[in-house]
Amino acid sequence: MAIITPSRRVRRTPFSPGVEAAGVGGYTVYNHMLLPTFFENVEADAEHLKKHVQVWDVACERQVEIKGPDALRLMKLLSPRDMDRMQADQCYYVPVVDHNGGMLNDPVAVKLADDHYWLSVADGDLWQFALGIAIALDMDVEVGEPDVSPLAVQGPKAEELMARVFGDSVREIKFFRYKRLPFEDRSFVVARSGWSKQGGFEIYVDDSDYGMPLWEELLAVGRDLNVRAGCPNSIERIESGLLSFGSDMRRENTPYECGLGRFCNSPDEFIGKAALADQKLNGPPQQIRPIVIEGEIAPCTDVWTLIANGNHVGQVTSAMFSPQFGVNVAIGMVKRSHWAPGTRTEVMTDHGMRWAVVQEKFWR
Amino acid sequence: MAIITPSRRVRRTPFSPGVEAAGVGGYTVYNHMLLPTFFENVEADAEHLKKHVQVWDVACERQVEIKGPDALRLMKLLSPRDMDRMQADQCYYVPVVDHNGGMLNDPVAVKLADDHYWLSVADGDLWQFALGIAIALDMDVEVGEPDVSPLAVQGPKAEELMARVFGDSVREIKFFRYKRLPFEDRSFVVARSGWSKQGGFEIYVDDSDYGMPLWEELLAVGRDLNVRAGCPNSIERIESGLLSFGSDMRRENTPYECGLGRFCNSPDEFIGKAALADQKLNGPPQQIRPIVIEGEIAPCTDVWTLIANGNHVGQVTSAMFSPQFGVNVAIGMVKRSHWAPGTRTEVMTDHGMRWAVVQEKFWR
Repeated sequence: MAIITPSRRVRRTPFSPGVEAAGVGGYTVYNHMLLPTFFENVEADAEHLKKHVQVWDVACERQVEIKGPDALRLMKLLSPRDMDRMQADQCYYVPVVDHNGGMLNDPVAVKLADDHYWLSVADGDLWQFALGIAIALDMDVEVGEPDVSPLAVQGPKAEELMARVFGDSVREIKFFRYKRLPFEDRSFVVARSGWSKQGGFEIYVDDSDYGMPLWEELLAVGRDLNVRAGCPNSIERIESGLLSFGSDMRRENTPYECGLGRFCNSPDEFIGKAALADQKLNGPPQQIRPIVIEGEIAPCTDVWTLIANGNHVGQVTSAMFSPQFGVNVAIGMVKRSHWAPGTRTEVMTDHGMRWAVVQEKFWR
Repeated sequence: MAIITPSRRVRRTPFSPGVEAAGVGGYTVYNHMLLPTFFENVEADAEHLKKHVQVWDVACERQVEIKGPDALRLMKLLSPRDMDRMQADQCYYVPVVDHNGGMLNDPVAVKLADDHYWLSVADGDLWQFALGIAIALDMDVEVGEPDVSPLAVQGPKAEELMARVFGDSVREIKFFRYKRLPFEDRSFVVARSGWSKQGGFEIYVDDSDYGMPLWEELLAVGRDLNVRAGCPNSIERIESGLLSFGSDMRRENTPYECGLGRFCNSPDEFIGKAALADQKLNGPPQQIRPIVIEGEIAPCTDVWTLIANGNHVGQVTSAMFSPQFGVNVAIGMVKRSHWAPGTRTEVMTDHGMRWAVVQEKFWR
């Protein structure tokens, strides 16, 4: 496997010195920024994550800042979700779509004030879309990328570790809610969220200078909790059914195809609303499904076609062996004719045809 | 150095099998796609490029397709350059800016028809900006990313190699002009362009299935020309003064700061025009300059501050040792007070302070 070449364009993060000191093994690039992919190895990292607690450099979840008198007006155009119901301390998962209902990104929106939002984006320059709209409509709003670098603390011992650094009030934070909690002479947005289903928090560090002090504090006070540097884990996230924008869904997919229809409830005229009306009523022609692949496979790094009776009936875009469940867990986009649980199809992997079986549910 | 982890999100290209067979040594990620960074090593690759001919997988120069009745109207909003002067077979270097004059990208526009353009973009989802504007203004235009993967043929023997595959008419193509030339049962846009100053062409392969056949044909018929797989070379491009968007210039910079003021000549009301008026008249407060750094350095992979009398007077964002010129060649953004050729400042490199000297010209 080839190395990744450093340059200013592929940005380091405020936590990079910590990531390197912890012996990062691999990277991907996400929003023009380094994102670690494993430390020991993906299997061992997953096992540790499920038992203990990890600190993740997810600074690459860059924020699109939308601020100013027209902020809510712009958010309502961008969001298929009803923004008027959003509480002051709430985080909203928002699938943003184009005029045809095709997904552009699946950010988590954080409401800081009525005229101030962050969109914590998946890989893609969604700020360019928001900026294009704001400029074209001459809106009184700033669209930019502020100095905010999320740090995730994930795993069953995450709450205990966070309480030692931010105090016991972290325990009161509900899922997808946040509090502003003090660290040194600052306070940060701390949300109960993160890209695993092991429980945990994301800290929106809105000043790079506090990145390494916070990283070091978390690792120092959690030694007896067996805290480690970690990163989003490709086995755990497939087991949990957490979709990766760019891999499992793209602009050619609607939120309904991705199982995100429940987030399209806005009464306002958001972009793509008319195009989504038919799928809202009748459902999509294909949809994301958990899949088990039988036999031996290498991890899926591109597209594996699902075939039944010689016809293309879908595709797998993420697949790995799960030591915990003893099967190859996978995420696929499957046509309606073949999406019922228990349906068997063939799947064309990198190493030949295998059997694929649609599952009832993801593994957690 | 860490490895790069494969996934569908970090896309392979139609030429990836050829790149891998040629023993690629490193990658970067550019427009969510793999871009090779070296084969033998950067120094040896540079020497070969300057003597022979190389075939480069630059599929990551993705095209933003703008097509439809309102295509020219949208292009005029996006382009600071006078689109009415653009000839039918022309390529235009177009620095696209926001409403404040800040650079969003520096694509090469290719005019396919009066209602059909490609923007061959640097790293960044400029299509999202174009799409946002088109949707907000309800334009009758499609904005998308078609199946077009540029393949570059660069080096002093490029014309000879290209003539063997596409015929002698390639020799008549002028700089930044193109012809449609046949390959097998198709024809491709072939432009005299590319991200080196060794001469050469870019072939816009608008059907992935023809990628590897073309790659293999070029390598097969050029054996006696010592053709090799190559890639944009970080030494050669610094010597040549070719700027990297994301490294040497960003949204905080105007085209005037980047020495691209001559491309801002549109009589139309493009986005950012008013904001650029002052710099058009009075010049920018800082500008890109060639710089020599004295002493030993490692390649610059982030920002090195230029300091004079204790003050920040600019920054270096690309620097490498040039075996050909026997000096460390660098690209910097330097304040007006210190940008005159011959000016000496200090520069804070990763390995301590060095002397930096502003040069009259880039090295070619």
